[in-house]
Amino acid sequence: MHILIIGAAGMVGRKLTQRLVRDGSLRGRGVETLTLVDVVTPEAPDDFPGSVNCELADLSAPGTAERLVQSRPDVIFHLAAIVSGEAELDFEKGYRINLDGTRYLFDAIRKANETDGYRPRLVFTSSIAVVGAPLPFPIPDDFHSTPLTSYGTQKAICELLLSDYSRKGFFDGIGIRLPTICIRPGKPNKAASGFFSNILREPLVGQEAILPVGEDIRHWHASPRSAVGFLIHGATIDLQEVGPRRNLSMPGLSATVGEQIEALRRIAGEKAVKLIRREPDEMIMRMCAGWAPGFEATRARALGFTAESSFDEIIRIHIEDELGGTL
Amino acid sequence: MHILIIGAAGMVGRKLTQRLVRDGSLRGRGVETLTLVDVVTPEAPDDFPGSVNCELADLSAPGTAERLVQSRPDVIFHLAAIVSGEAELDFEKGYRINLDGTRYLFDAIRKANETDGYRPRLVFTSSIAVVGAPLPFPIPDDFHSTPLTSYGTQKAICELLLSDYSRKGFFDGIGIRLPTICIRPGKPNKAASGFFSNILREPLVGQEAILPVGEDIRHWHASPRSAVGFLIHGATIDLQEVGPRRNLSMPGLSATVGEQIEALRRIAGEKAVKLIRREPDEMIMRMCAGWAPGFEATRARALGFTAESSFDEIIRIHIEDELGGTL
Repeated sequence: MHILIIGAAGMVGRKLTQRLVRDGSLRGRGVETLTLVDVVTPEAPDDFPGSVNCELADLSAPGTAERLVQSRPDVIFHLAAIVSGEAELDFEKGYRINLDGTRYLFDAIRKANETDGYRPRLVFTSSIAVVGAPLPFPIPDDFHSTPLTSYGTQKAICELLLSDYSRKGFFDGIGIRLPTICIRPGKPNKAASGFFSNILREPLVGQEAILPVGEDIRHWHASPRSAVGFLIHGATIDLQEVGPRRNLSMPGLSATVGEQIEALRRIAGEKAVKLIRREPDEMIMRMCAGWAPGFEATRARALGFTAESSFDEIIRIHIEDELGGTL
Repeated sequence: MHILIIGAAGMVGRKLTQRLVRDGSLRGRGVETLTLVDVVTPEAPDDFPGSVNCELADLSAPGTAERLVQSRPDVIFHLAAIVSGEAELDFEKGYRINLDGTRYLFDAIRKANETDGYRPRLVFTSSIAVVGAPLPFPIPDDFHSTPLTSYGTQKAICELLLSDYSRKGFFDGIGIRLPTICIRPGKPNKAASGFFSNILREPLVGQEAILPVGEDIRHWHASPRSAVGFLIHGATIDLQEVGPRRNLSMPGLSATVGEQIEALRRIAGEKAVKLIRREPDEMIMRMCAGWAPGFEATRARALGFTAESSFDEIIRIHIEDELGGTL
């Protein structure tokens, strides 16, 4: 089996690659070839016995999609996107990368399908940013997409394209609406939502972190391990069962910031909690108010997608996967 | 005031033009210039004292959108689209005309906005085809878009773009989700939904009509007069009140085919009803089963959009507007 990962150098892409290498198979077939693509050259995994192609390529550039599809990968993970903040600041770039790039990919597959019946499984990462306030809690599966960012708009449009191209039989697609990934490994970044991870990750290693919002803010989380699990499960399940509605809100954990902090206290003690410095930020508080508090995810759960059920579990996964298993 | 109508040669476009000429004003300002554009040259209205430009132009051709925006029309009605059946048969043409054409228009306005602050009112005709079975009845305003046709997908994508471009302040847009227009004037056509009009329009003038489905089929209707009313009202109301969710399911009349026939009987007698010939068509019956039975349209009604409340009224409007007032 040949697997193509577009956006392989990102956090989720790297973890997905590791998981595929560790599993060695997908859908009951051995993974023979990995093609890893991103706008920075992805690193080849160390211990993969098959063949690996690491490519620097921009999906929004003419010809890239056709070239990637030429070798007819069996499964395509399309994770590439510029993030919300950048898409909001650079309107044209957001539409070029997040919408046009995706459409080039879908059309390259469609043309290959028309040529020789090629019909890969396509797993696309969408986002909870496709919804926007005012929102009910929990948000039902049949709630409309009313994004309040260009990024969310681009993801919602790609979801519609994915359903239509799947309906027409050009590929067998599934859109995975990822919760906010928590705890994100790495350094604190400037994403407005970064604090959800920062207030756990930094104190766990004795570093200070800033909390810009109140403890009553409720949001929707899943671990990086769950995110990868969603993608693997999305690549595996029978999509006939999913029917024509191909975009699924993933399960996750709905928790307040206060509940995050209580879990940190249980696992790392009061000393860790004391490292959280409160610095209210009006802008982040306003943005937060429009974010999704949580989804029902009824369909995804019924299809076997699973996520964490407590923040203790999310923190323990971070300790296992990022900190060598101990504090 | 300068008004641009793209798709002016179609049934709704012609009726909208007539209404604007009759009213002579929009939003309290006199209509001085009408630019009428379509892929066949629109006819100039007879009795308009202002200036009229009738143009043959294809919005999906490079440069068309920029040219149309150059004269900075105050209000733009964008009604142009290829219909559902054609978009389903010709995938590339559907996306080119219904999606790319619209995006070219939106981007031409965005660039004009960046140049000199131009920010027109933009009224876009969307469709109930943005939803697809299984559907609740009535369909609430916050029900998700899950189109089962490429046409519906293209309309749903344009809705998302319209909201995002409006949110960014490039134009002041509103998307009008039209019910099925009934009674459509003219000859019977091959649209699968044509029978809803045919079974009334033809018997009213003593002609036979074919009913391909059962009398229990429930669907969502509004008269051509109401459709034009929606567009005018959409061009007029304060969109601050509408907020960021710019696409509105219009009010309409939810009725079964049986209820349509009862109204025909009350207005034109048993003689007319006898002209309806039953010829069940499996394909049309299957398609019908996926169509929208009716919408709550709570937001649109609260904003003052109105439609008919009985099929008697819909038939009477047809007699007044198309048959000179009498049978």
